[in-house]
Amino acid sequence: MRILTAGESHGEYEVAVVEGFPRGVKIVNDLIDRELKRRMSGYGRGARMVIESDSVKIVSGLRNKITLGSPIALLVKNYDHKIFTQHKDGLNPITTLRPAHADLAGSLKYGERDARNILERASARETVARVAAGSLCKQFLSNFNIRVASYVSAIGAVVSNKRPQNIAGLVNAAALSPVGAIDKAKEKAMIQAIDKAKVAGDSLGGVVEVWAGGVCPGLGSVMHYDKRLDAALAAGLMSIPSVKGVEIGLGFTYAALPGSKAHDAITYKSRRGFAHKTNHSGGIEGGISNGETITARIALKPIATLARPLASVDIVSKKSRNAAVVRSDTCAVTAAGVIAESMTAIALARAFLEKFGGDSLKEIAANYKNYLKTLK
Amino acid sequence: MRILTAGESHGEYEVAVVEGFPRGVKIVNDLIDRELKRRMSGYGRGARMVIESDSVKIVSGLRNKITLGSPIALLVKNYDHKIFTQHKDGLNPITTLRPAHADLAGSLKYGERDARNILERASARETVARVAAGSLCKQFLSNFNIRVASYVSAIGAVVSNKRPQNIAGLVNAAALSPVGAIDKAKEKAMIQAIDKAKVAGDSLGGVVEVWAGGVCPGLGSVMHYDKRLDAALAAGLMSIPSVKGVEIGLGFTYAALPGSKAHDAITYKSRRGFAHKTNHSGGIEGGISNGETITARIALKPIATLARPLASVDIVSKKSRNAAVVRSDTCAVTAAGVIAESMTAIALARAFLEKFGGDSLKEIAANYKNYLKTLK
Amino acid sequence: MRILTAGESHGEYEVAVVEGFPRGVKIVNDLIDRELKRRMSGYGRGARMVIESDSVKIVSGLRNKITLGSPIALLVKNYDHKIFTQHKDGLNPITTLRPAHADLAGSLKYGERDARNILERASARETVARVAAGSLCKQFLSNFNIRVASYVSAIGAVVSNKRPQNIAGLVNAAALSPVGAIDKAKEKAMIQAIDKAKVAGDSLGGVVEVWAGGVCPGLGSVMHYDKRLDAALAAGLMSIPSVKGVEIGLGFTYAALPGSKAHDAITYKSRRGFAHKTNHSGGIEGGISNGETITARIALKPIATLARPLASVDIVSKKSRNAAVVRSDTCAVTAAGVIAESMTAIALARAFLEKFGGDSLKEIAANYKNYLKTLK
Amino acid sequence: MRILTAGESHGEYEVAVVEGFPRGVKIVNDLIDRELKRRMSGYGRGARMVIESDSVKIVSGLRNKITLGSPIALLVKNYDHKIFTQHKDGLNPITTLRPAHADLAGSLKYGERDARNILERASARETVARVAAGSLCKQFLSNFNIRVASYVSAIGAVVSNKRPQNIAGLVNAAALSPVGAIDKAKEKAMIQAIDKAKVAGDSLGGVVEVWAGGVCPGLGSVMHYDKRLDAALAAGLMSIPSVKGVEIGLGFTYAALPGSKAHDAITYKSRRGFAHKTNHSGGIEGGISNGETITARIALKPIATLARPLASVDIVSKKSRNAAVVRSDTCAVTAAGVIAESMTAIALARAFLEKFGGDSLKEIAANYKNYLKTLK
Repeated sequence: MRILTAGESHGEYEVAVVEGFPRGVKIVNDLIDRELKRRMSGYGRGARMVIESDSVKIVSGLRNKITLGSPIALLVKNYDHKIFTQHKDGLNPITTLRPAHADLAGSLKYGERDARNILERASARETVARVAAGSLCKQFLSNFNIRVASYVSAIGAVVSNKRPQNIAGLVNAAALSPVGAIDKAKEKAMIQAIDKAKVAGDSLGGVVEVWAGGVCPGLGSVMHYDKRLDAALAAGLMSIPSVKGVEIGLGFTYAALPGSKAHDAITYKSRRGFAHKTNHSGGIEGGISNGETITARIALKPIATLARPLASVDIVSKKSRNAAVVRSDTCAVTAAGVIAESMTAIALARAFLEKFGGDSLKEIAANYKNYLKTLK
Repeated sequence: MRILTAGESHGEYEVAVVEGFPRGVKIVNDLIDRELKRRMSGYGRGARMVIESDSVKIVSGLRNKITLGSPIALLVKNYDHKIFTQHKDGLNPITTLRPAHADLAGSLKYGERDARNILERASARETVARVAAGSLCKQFLSNFNIRVASYVSAIGAVVSNKRPQNIAGLVNAAALSPVGAIDKAKEKAMIQAIDKAKVAGDSLGGVVEVWAGGVCPGLGSVMHYDKRLDAALAAGLMSIPSVKGVEIGLGFTYAALPGSKAHDAITYKSRRGFAHKTNHSGGIEGGISNGETITARIALKPIATLARPLASVDIVSKKSRNAAVVRSDTCAVTAAGVIAESMTAIALARAFLEKFGGDSLKEIAANYKNYLKTLK
Repeated sequence: MRILTAGESHGEYEVAVVEGFPRGVKIVNDLIDRELKRRMSGYGRGARMVIESDSVKIVSGLRNKITLGSPIALLVKNYDHKIFTQHKDGLNPITTLRPAHADLAGSLKYGERDARNILERASARETVARVAAGSLCKQFLSNFNIRVASYVSAIGAVVSNKRPQNIAGLVNAAALSPVGAIDKAKEKAMIQAIDKAKVAGDSLGGVVEVWAGGVCPGLGSVMHYDKRLDAALAAGLMSIPSVKGVEIGLGFTYAALPGSKAHDAITYKSRRGFAHKTNHSGGIEGGISNGETITARIALKPIATLARPLASVDIVSKKSRNAAVVRSDTCAVTAAGVIAESMTAIALARAFLEKFGGDSLKEIAANYKNYLKTLK
Repeated sequence: MRILTAGESHGEYEVAVVEGFPRGVKIVNDLIDRELKRRMSGYGRGARMVIESDSVKIVSGLRNKITLGSPIALLVKNYDHKIFTQHKDGLNPITTLRPAHADLAGSLKYGERDARNILERASARETVARVAAGSLCKQFLSNFNIRVASYVSAIGAVVSNKRPQNIAGLVNAAALSPVGAIDKAKEKAMIQAIDKAKVAGDSLGGVVEVWAGGVCPGLGSVMHYDKRLDAALAAGLMSIPSVKGVEIGLGFTYAALPGSKAHDAITYKSRRGFAHKTNHSGGIEGGISNGETITARIALKPIATLARPLASVDIVSKKSRNAAVVRSDTCAVTAAGVIAESMTAIALARAFLEKFGGDSLKEIAANYKNYLKTLK
């Protein structure tokens, strides 16, 4: 499965083409739109997010809402497009580089003196296309009872150590919280931290944990390093704007534990088959899913655009300048959850299709069923 | 640049083929062997490591020690190979699954009832081929004054917060320490922790930080999520056996800081050009190198094989069994440093070749020089 | 450069996303539309082609008509879309398999009992997206004076042996002919052959020759078989619907010649540098462009849909049926020329970008100029 | 399945690494060696070929002759290696460019003034690694009764129009002929043509036809142009040194036929299921295998090295020189057959694995069996 995305933040559309998606999968547009809405939500978003309401249009790959096996092209309109094009030649050039954005690195890479030519694509707006593609993957995976969900475990310095009981509990709990937390006790403190940062003209990052339940053992590979599921997951998660850290299972906590307390003992029960007493590994061992829930965490740096601007430089004059003050979010950690779920669903769907082959859902399901029989 | 590796731990050779490596690069075999030696060293390794001495043999791609632009095939002999083949049909089957290894997930994936058929390739021995390939990449990058080095910042619960002054200081300091640390004060405690774990029949993990200095801005891309340098780096580092977490720059620390304290202000100085006041981002912004030193950290879980075995199951009888007690290392964090450097060098060389094109070192150098002129 | 296309023949849009296209290239929409028009033209097309008029809409990757280096998304509306969607659930099922189409192979592959679910994507309509992407590549290549053109050398049994003098002559001559021929003497016979086939309810194929002039030596590679330019070209050309044969240079004629008459002697002239006395090789030796005009020929089987239908089978009842009689073209060889040019331009642009690297047209041009200096 | 090859003609080894080959396939080394021997045979080869006897050594990926699912590394020794290394710094530089070789294009590409640095890898000797990898694929495919074979249908101007009855007949007939022909009547003329060319200091090319029997419908795809089986086959065959033309089924003959005589009518018989009355398409329609025997033809240009040398130029002095006279073959068309079979087997194995997924032969066979049931 190959996915290409396209789209500038003030361009006409965000676009995704998903090639290699199997035939015969029922696609519900509303489920995609719900994910797009989740992507815009979360306490701490700017005013813009409130008015916007993204909606996907699928222009190929479906007939009567069922996939054809052909490439699926998804379009999502950008509501700011008109504002952009009302100007004679687009918006004015931006020459003051905004720290912590792609402005400097991108401008140097492309020999550019108008950072707008970088930031239009560098904007997190591009994740719309990933979320739409991720929703397709989720809908595919749901045929095999694989569910992907996430929750916020930290906003700035407010950290919750509460973990969900299981994937079902996670799906329900996180959706109810304005910050996407499952820890009611910490939720209030998180909201307060965002309020405080907003007043101070500051911004916050945080930590999101993503879970994938119902994944059979055997996805990914230990046979070549670049086919490992953990590597694919790490690449997908680290590619999310603002993400600077990725953990699988215990992650960095592993480093401090002795082996005797770190590792997951193996068990066998006649009904469930092979399993583990604990799930410190986060469901992946040797680069292969091991049948336990896959758990990963990502660290997000604070929003780069601040109301109280950072010191910077003008790319043309080379003189010191303060970064522009643009309307922006105070905190987008909650929204990052749905993007993380999308990247996880994409990685899993790809590994699933590699393992089970097949061109249609029916054929894949038959292959999958065959394999499950061999596990016990 | 494409790299394939091959080799079982008791097979005849570890093999790497590096395709797309440019013409005209001088390759010093001794530099590869030095890296292979570093890979076997570090306080806490088992007795086996002491006797072994890996040495690379390059069987294609070079003429008079200069690369031809053709694929480079590297062979490293496995010294245990003879022991393996003295048995009539290889070594005996292993049916008791070792926790925290690929034994369970791999056996289920492949419908296997002898875990040896999994572990031969799942062994960390395969990283020999990566380190050899990584050394080629380091030698290529050194033509552009890019240097990759690493140090150990934690062994088990012993954590050092000391950071190197710069890449030159790092190269020298870490090499002098038996545990690869740059913090003399903590080095002793680290060694003691390993000794203690060994006596207890336990094992330790830790944290390694890898740096790449001299990287020009502009490697990687913000234009498509799967071309980002941070994603490539995360995939490479997470693919190292035992790695469960990856951070770039401040990593998870970022999550707790407000934007005003987190981000790197941009500066311009006539001699150096654009730069940053701090380097919290770890040299990558928007998925693109920004000209600062690239810094990444990895978390390693403790060695999976324990002298005091973990509870497990026999894959054939399904009965509870203790995992086999095999001679093993107590701690391999130091060695993981050189593997992390290798994966970093591979990711950087690939990004460098994509940015600058060219078939020969001479052509690449001309393209590179052209580009550098545009940066100021 | 990665290209994904999407679109069913009665879907809303044909879509292409072109990722990895360099920054700073001026794109003229009219040039794309002109190619789309050429794709619909040629003597022997059905009535449908006359009314249609494809037009591209670029929804990302450009600002003020200049590429941004971000993915370029192209949309072309399908005019039959409305007819398709006026039906309650799309058009009626097709169960009689049409010979020489993808109907049988595709239906078996996907476990499908309505061939419409195959043919919507299998239709040659999908080449619209390739031609649009190919035009982008042509516009890029024109910055380096690389020109791609084609002509028809055979329609059915009417074969012309006339070859163009040079690329400039080819561009002008073929455009003037209703069948795309450069041989005025044979053009009339070709038209008559088409007329005759139409009256007989039959269809015709033919031969197209595509040329690429101005290609510097050094594109492609002899170092690994799957990086050869001839392999890339063959794959691209063979992937065109109806193409069953590909020749480079003399092609099959080579097989009958002795070496002494087959090979191109090498010359050197101070102004031009290295060259060849003849160009039998078609500009590619050892998988690398050699500086001569690249010439390739493709054989097209006759249009599969006949007014006088072929014997076939109903996929559900398994009973013998005649294939449906659908309005169709009699001959589409002329149009295949522009598709062949597009696939050639894509292959060349990709090889060019691999050779010269660089992110912007300016950087690529500097690298290219550097390289040209080394050729003499 | 990914395959990388390495090796210079006077280097120590030809190397192939085959990654993604399934677990549980029995590999017979002698079958590989038999293919390597076929690659060196055929009437018209030089004296060198008679003494050489290639033999493969598999250094990874097997245990007790069964594949492990890990990458398979294959080594084949080069017997001329010693001669090469006895010289102080390898053999002397070659500055006179040999026409019809990669000498000129390669030297310009790499900025090289010693063509030996090009020709060592450009030598057809590299096909040893492809044939070894191809034999692995043949052995895999034989588990599904897929057989790949070839025969010579033309040597120079001597053309045979005889075609095999079926794949079984082909396998037997071609092996018995010194030129690989199945037409006893033309075999003698082919041998005479080679003898005559040898006396004249000339060389010959020819035409090879490759067949793959037992291929189920459904391999390849019509859904995206670069996933078509015909495109993969064309790329693989065109990448063979000296190949300048590729046809599938009727190939260029198709161009001259009207649709009514060109296309294969579809039939259904209760025992065999869907089939075709003729097989003009060569077993591929819409880029997908259709269940008929796959047939492809390649045109080989004459051997480039002539005893009576061609006019050329010295790359350093730029002066006219005759190309060096090196011992060489007069005709290598017969040997090209086994290379064509190898590239076909690789393309088919790859398409087969994509269609059926699975990690072990057992799992693949179960998926395959499931699919076959759906075909009738």
